[in-house]
Amino acid sequence: MRTGVWLVGARGSVATTSIVGGLALRAGLAGSTGCVTELPELRGPALPSFADLVFGGHDVATTPLCKRAEALADAGVVPWRLVAALPDELAAVEQELRPAPVGDTQADRAAAVVRDLTTFRERHGLDRVVVVNVSATEPAPRPHPGHADPAALRAALAGPDEVLPPSSLYGYAALLAGCPYVDFTPSIGLRLPALTTLAQEARLPYAGHDGKTGETLVKSVLAPMFAMRNLAVRSWSGVNLLGGGDGATLADPAANAAKVQSKQRVLGETLGYLPQGGSRIEYVEELGDFKTAWDLITFAGFLGTGMRMEFTWHGCDSALAAPLVLDLARLTAAAHAAGHVGPLAELGFFFKDPIGAPTHSLAEQWARLTDFTQRLHAGRDGAHGHAG
Amino acid sequence: MRTGVWLVGARGSVATTSIVGGLALRAGLAGSTGCVTELPELRGPALPSFADLVFGGHDVATTPLCKRAEALADAGVVPWRLVAALPDELAAVEQELRPAPVGDTQADRAAAVVRDLTTFRERHGLDRVVVVNVSATEPAPRPHPGHADPAALRAALAGPDEVLPPSSLYGYAALLAGCPYVDFTPSIGLRLPALTTLAQEARLPYAGHDGKTGETLVKSVLAPMFAMRNLAVRSWSGVNLLGGGDGATLADPAANAAKVQSKQRVLGETLGYLPQGGSRIEYVEELGDFKTAWDLITFAGFLGTGMRMEFTWHGCDSALAAPLVLDLARLTAAAHAAGHVGPLAELGFFFKDPIGAPTHSLAEQWARLTDFTQRLHAGRDGAHGHAG
Amino acid sequence: MRTGVWLVGARGSVATTSIVGGLALRAGLAGSTGCVTELPELRGPALPSFADLVFGGHDVATTPLCKRAEALADAGVVPWRLVAALPDELAAVEQELRPAPVGDTQADRAAAVVRDLTTFRERHGLDRVVVVNVSATEPAPRPHPGHADPAALRAALAGPDEVLPPSSLYGYAALLAGCPYVDFTPSIGLRLPALTTLAQEARLPYAGHDGKTGETLVKSVLAPMFAMRNLAVRSWSGVNLLGGGDGATLADPAANAAKVQSKQRVLGETLGYLPQGGSRIEYVEELGDFKTAWDLITFAGFLGTGMRMEFTWHGCDSALAAPLVLDLARLTAAAHAAGHVGPLAELGFFFKDPIGAPTHSLAEQWARLTDFTQRLHAGRDGAHGHAG
Amino acid sequence: MRTGVWLVGARGSVATTSIVGGLALRAGLAGSTGCVTELPELRGPALPSFADLVFGGHDVATTPLCKRAEALADAGVVPWRLVAALPDELAAVEQELRPAPVGDTQADRAAAVVRDLTTFRERHGLDRVVVVNVSATEPAPRPHPGHADPAALRAALAGPDEVLPPSSLYGYAALLAGCPYVDFTPSIGLRLPALTTLAQEARLPYAGHDGKTGETLVKSVLAPMFAMRNLAVRSWSGVNLLGGGDGATLADPAANAAKVQSKQRVLGETLGYLPQGGSRIEYVEELGDFKTAWDLITFAGFLGTGMRMEFTWHGCDSALAAPLVLDLARLTAAAHAAGHVGPLAELGFFFKDPIGAPTHSLAEQWARLTDFTQRLHAGRDGAHGHAG
Ligand SMILES: NC(=O)c1ccc[n+]([C@@H]2O[C@H](COP(=O)([O-])OP(=O)(O)OC[C@H]3O[C@@H](n4cnc5c(N)ncnc54)[C@H](O)[C@@H]3O)[C@@H](O)[C@H]2O)c1
Ligand SMILES: NC(=O)c1ccc[n+]([C@@H]2O[C@H](COP(=O)([O-])OP(=O)(O)OC[C@H]3O[C@@H](n4cnc5c(N)ncnc54)[C@H](O)[C@@H]3O)[C@@H](O)[C@H]2O)c1
Ligand SMILES: NC(=O)c1ccc[n+]([C@@H]2O[C@H](COP(=O)([O-])OP(=O)(O)OC[C@H]3O[C@@H](n4cnc5c(N)ncnc54)[C@H](O)[C@@H]3O)[C@@H](O)[C@H]2O)c1
Ligand SMILES: NC(=O)c1ccc[n+]([C@@H]2O[C@H](COP(=O)([O-])OP(=O)(O)OC[C@H]3O[C@@H](n4cnc5c(N)ncnc54)[C@H](O)[C@@H]3O)[C@@H](O)[C@H]2O)c1
Ligand code: NA
Ligand code: NA
Repeated sequence: MRTGVWLVGARGSVATTSIVGGLALRAGLAGSTGCVTELPELRGPALPSFADLVFGGHDVATTPLCKRAEALADAGVVPWRLVAALPDELAAVEQELRPAPVGDTQADRAAAVVRDLTTFRERHGLDRVVVVNVSATEPAPRPHPGHADPAALRAALAGPDEVLPPSSLYGYAALLAGCPYVDFTPSIGLRLPALTTLAQEARLPYAGHDGKTGETLVKSVLAPMFAMRNLAVRSWSGVNLLGGGDGATLADPAANAAKVQSKQRVLGETLGYLPQGGSRIEYVEELGDFKTAWDLITFAGFLGTGMRMEFTWHGCDSALAAPLVLDLARLTAAAHAAGHVGPLAELGFFFKDPIGAPTHSLAEQWARLTDFTQRLHAGRDGAHGHAG
Repeated sequence: MRTGVWLVGARGSVATTSIVGGLALRAGLAGSTGCVTELPELRGPALPSFADLVFGGHDVATTPLCKRAEALADAGVVPWRLVAALPDELAAVEQELRPAPVGDTQADRAAAVVRDLTTFRERHGLDRVVVVNVSATEPAPRPHPGHADPAALRAALAGPDEVLPPSSLYGYAALLAGCPYVDFTPSIGLRLPALTTLAQEARLPYAGHDGKTGETLVKSVLAPMFAMRNLAVRSWSGVNLLGGGDGATLADPAANAAKVQSKQRVLGETLGYLPQGGSRIEYVEELGDFKTAWDLITFAGFLGTGMRMEFTWHGCDSALAAPLVLDLARLTAAAHAAGHVGPLAELGFFFKDPIGAPTHSLAEQWARLTDFTQRLHAGRDGAHGHAG
Repeated sequence: MRTGVWLVGARGSVATTSIVGGLALRAGLAGSTGCVTELPELRGPALPSFADLVFGGHDVATTPLCKRAEALADAGVVPWRLVAALPDELAAVEQELRPAPVGDTQADRAAAVVRDLTTFRERHGLDRVVVVNVSATEPAPRPHPGHADPAALRAALAGPDEVLPPSSLYGYAALLAGCPYVDFTPSIGLRLPALTTLAQEARLPYAGHDGKTGETLVKSVLAPMFAMRNLAVRSWSGVNLLGGGDGATLADPAANAAKVQSKQRVLGETLGYLPQGGSRIEYVEELGDFKTAWDLITFAGFLGTGMRMEFTWHGCDSALAAPLVLDLARLTAAAHAAGHVGPLAELGFFFKDPIGAPTHSLAEQWARLTDFTQRLHAGRDGAHGHAG
Repeated sequence: MRTGVWLVGARGSVATTSIVGGLALRAGLAGSTGCVTELPELRGPALPSFADLVFGGHDVATTPLCKRAEALADAGVVPWRLVAALPDELAAVEQELRPAPVGDTQADRAAAVVRDLTTFRERHGLDRVVVVNVSATEPAPRPHPGHADPAALRAALAGPDEVLPPSSLYGYAALLAGCPYVDFTPSIGLRLPALTTLAQEARLPYAGHDGKTGETLVKSVLAPMFAMRNLAVRSWSGVNLLGGGDGATLADPAANAAKVQSKQRVLGETLGYLPQGGSRIEYVEELGDFKTAWDLITFAGFLGTGMRMEFTWHGCDSALAAPLVLDLARLTAAAHAAGHVGPLAELGFFFKDPIGAPTHSLAEQWARLTDFTQRLHAGRDGAHGHAG
């Protein structure tokens, strides 16, 4: 099952790490640590192999991919050894990268994206292309009447307005081109009535939002622990210090707000009440792609006795995200092949703000994910009964 | 369902906190924070209510219970308010405490315990008595031929040898008296062939070992997180600093060794490999009952990138343990009433070193526990088919 | 040397803890832990004894002092034992507390404060009264022409404008009443040209600003450590989580800004460059008076090797501040007695943002403080040559 | 002033980092971060320049120096860039390395070392050679009558006994060869009566013991902070997790004991009392040369209020130690040139367990060091009056 992985933000840290890693896995130069789909519980015939993956993508930046890969090697995100071993493979991917689309109207720009996706699929004889958004986090979009339904949207896009933010415009184009869409960022993506309706009409699956890789990942196992033990969390305060491109973007208060909100939701929904405190993101350039998060949790136990826990997470964001991008591409491709349509709530395991998913508990998400994947492998899932 | 809770080590910190809390709950003076059996997923008719619980126990120490309660209030473990409000109730429990049994042979001492348990049950018209071991951790026992089977054991106990360590002798007496037995400590308890056979013969359920309240509790959600994300844990090193009676006991290398071992097992069994590092217990008197545990976890992600996490847990051990003691008494009483026999693997959720349980993952243990308890409430569990 | 300690903000946490502690020390019910002036290097005849201290003060709040003391005991800031033992002494201080002054103009209100101070001194036959500002942190004041010199100030105060913020108005009144003034807060206090000139004219000493009790205290020994070892601090990021009255005030962005700035200054001035990162204050009500600060420091060593340190400080702010308030009152009284005039740079040891002091290094501040105090004890300091 | 730096343990991590760094500084390829002697307060004419330093040494291991340098580059201790740029310089140092001395008696082996030192000095026309012990930490030596005085020692060394441990035998040989001796390890070195007498007779200065680079460095500023603030430290517990060669050695209980002891001394001597708790070293291979130390400090403030601080130090031991080795070589050379004899207590700044030094406070040590070095630069120090 030859599968295209089309990365929006293809020259960013997450995308570049995904590409280097995907190429290294294909070449047998690296192991699959961090790839969830390689665990015994998930591995199986329904998923495209790493060798089946072909990379392409869009970016507004123009830095050559190999320069980005070298910068990531310098920063300790990927091993120099791999970057040095894959010059031709990286150059081949470079050929598949396109600048952000141009055009007078957003309709024109969407059409340009559709062309890029379609020719990519045809050029490589791909069974399907999964579009994955790993571009910079956007501020929340302004409401627009065109968001209401497909007809209104089509009309609006033909006019002069900036109707859709980039994440949604790429999502729209993906639907037009018949491509499943995964949003690894907190941006709005397909979460507009016009677009969810279109996805149903196009009979395409989609997944999101916001890869769960650090502090929130830890929260999604610790919060259930407190809940299962009937301990009353009084406050949960966190700070995330990070540099890198993503850090610079999030230093912008508007983008920060979107991200911070998806970070706290897990607590309220898991505990059934919202503890005091908040989670904050601070840009510290010198930390680069290695984020340090610190959380303080105060809680009360039996008879009200006060206690506390704190943790420090020192993770490399792109190294945590990249294997999940590959996992999501594989799983979404398999879901598409099996005829799934609409939001893939079963992939909630991967996201801070999972669409359509009733839980933030990692263990429950895992149970749903393994069950879903087993059914994919068993071929028990078909186009029928999966209208979303 | 009037239920006796017979505490071995009844004047210790965990026991005293359990008694104060149980009395406070009965009197409506405290909420049920920390009591797992009061969560919506577990609450129900099969469990004795807090008002149904009657406390008694053995201890080698003679400090009056109210003095121990006052000391715990001074240390911030229980609120002064409660201790001050419950003088009569505490005095009533004091009447039910017995010194450690005396007798020439261990058989004589077991018989004395049986008498204490039987008269307690009769005096209060109890449906059943659950014996819970919360006494000081013992060193691992020396092998003895009497451990092999019930006949050999009976013969040996009549002689002059110290055949059984206290945890096992109390367990043996519990079985003779028809009482289910819960071991909250890492001591050997019923885990000897002679005693497990006897439990089957007596058609009694039992549970253990070693309440999971601190560092190991956290491990039992974090280790599965690393496993589910296919992250390779390279080292996991921990230190537990604690004072209190338990700390003093564990300062003894032999007791420490037993405890430390049950602390690392969770890692090997959850991850499928044993990371480097170890877990250590250090006695720091001044910390009293508030334990501080610190753990450092180093792990590798995608393409081998090294990362790390550390956490500090600052918990009040007795306040964490006491509600679980009440939970275990309630659940074990209900299991006994429903005819369960042998090791209650379904109670693995509560233990660092669960007997008969296939997993250390808190989430999986929770699933088993809720399922088991739902079945108890539904009355679907009977004496049939539960031969252990 | 009978010495009045007049607390502006006398019903606040710091003031109440200072009063309870001062009374307990006088009654021999508590030791002098935390009191720097009781160390062998500083103790001596020039300082008023604890028994010599008489407390009074202003506050806009009206909660009885004993209620505030009880609340602090409930919160674990002061022992219940002491509050229970000192009811008469607390009631006596209650008699010496005055509401915030009223009057049509700021000149009238200053005159009211002068009367309060003068009658307090006379009523108790005090040698002198030291005014200590421990009231809520103010936002930075707006510039006003009246700040320029004493004449302009006097003229302006007689008019309708709010010329001075409270900290400065109290400071002005202190000078008029012949009282040395200590500012334990980051507020502007005497730091206006009109007021520093007036202090010279009145031949009074003063000290400030902003008690150094937590994160900044630690910074003032760690930053010199990095400097002395020629290690290059790349980033220093901190977060302070606190509840309590002070926390609530600082949740206001304007007050927060004043405080945060004085927190970072120590780094720039000690290291000679400003590392990346910042220090932030967050209000978490549930933490009450126990503040948790967490700092991450990344630094480069030999050949550029990157390293890191993090610390968590879990301190009770009022318990840290109160003994320093007593120390400052004693030292400032002794300095006044010895004829010191103008800013007491030698007391920089106590402050985050020391007036007139050339260093933030705790060790250097200590050297200056011990030297200064030794000279006071030796009586080698007189009115001569200390014109500021 | 051409100065030889003779490293005992020359192929170890600290030595190799010192050599790579010294060569890089000479070649202008690296800055002097971490070198204390390059700070404005210490820089000056009395010290040999980096270009004046010539490296040689002994080691029992035979791994080529360039291989060790490459391994350190792989581990992130030194930059690859530097190792790649200095092949000829490293090869030149390789020529100056000697195997551990052989000989029938310890006297013979000492004579071999003397020859190595003397020919090194002559071959390079050096003004002097400073011997620096950076070899593996030894267990404490057994008492031997030969330790008592020079005559007894000389007699004993000629016999078959292992009279001296290696650190002392190298020290003895250094004295015979007229070389000042610095012990960067906790080993016994010259701290035997026979050897201190000999140093006086040979009119040679020496310094030690045990480089202060991590947890103890932090302790030496934090402990004075608590002392200066009259805060009562109740417990101070630490754990040091480290891999690398040094970690492997210290996993041996005997070596560990020596090290741990010098780590706690700083507390007792600074605070005037010994808090509860201890410091422990654990070997975790995977951490390599990057040590993680965690310390928990509990302390009482005013009126007994309990508080706590914890810190995590994540340092690269060799990168912290190497510049200090260069500093010590430069300073000891200058002290020798100025005629200093006996223990250089003024270099206590560099050591966990400073010989002859009255304080462990980093700030006080700094004051002594800068004063001493200023006097060296001023040429005010001579052979006179420095008989130790
Ligand atoms: N790394 C993680 O752990 C993680 C977790 C969750 C979410 N995310 C999200 O993933 C995204 C990527 O993170 P990153 O660290 O790679 O950031 P990055 O800044 O390195 O990369 C973003 C890339 O997007 C490109 N881009 C921006 N606007 C674009 C547009 N309109 N069209 C096409 N390309 C555009 C940029 O030029 C850049 O190359 C962010 O939104 C981040 O919030 C990352
Ligand atoms: N508190 C926790 O979080 C926790 C978690 C897991 C296990 N545990 C275990 O629970 C047990 C109790 O802990 P604790 O903190 O209450 O300790 P503790 O020292 O305060 O109490 C132990 C009590 O047992 C009594 N005892 C000792 N030997 C006895 C004997 N032979 N017969 C009867 N009584 C005897 C002692 O006199 C003492 O009163 C320990 O074994 C501990 O390891 C506690
Ligand atoms: N606790 C510490 O460690 C520490 C350290 C440095 C500085 N400080 C400063 O000390 C001050 C007091 O802190 P706190 O925790 O006691 O705060 P708090 O809020 O408990 O007390 C402040 C008191 O000031 C009173 N007040 C406010 N405006 C006033 C006015 N105009 N006139 C008279 N009284 C007034 C309030 O009514 C209140 O009683 C704050 O400014 C704080 O920033 C405290
Ligand atoms: N790195 C630090 O921060 C630091 C701080 C204080 C003290 N120290 C001490 O410095 C020493 C060196 O540390 P390291 O990390 O380089 O250790 P290492 O194990 O890497 O190096 C020690 C070297 O000494 C050699 N050696 C052992 N016995 C010898 C002998 N008898 N003669 C000659 N050579 C011998 C070994 O072969 C090895 O090459 C240790 O004693 C350590 O405790 C290091
Ligand atoms: Na930490
Ligand atoms: Na911490």
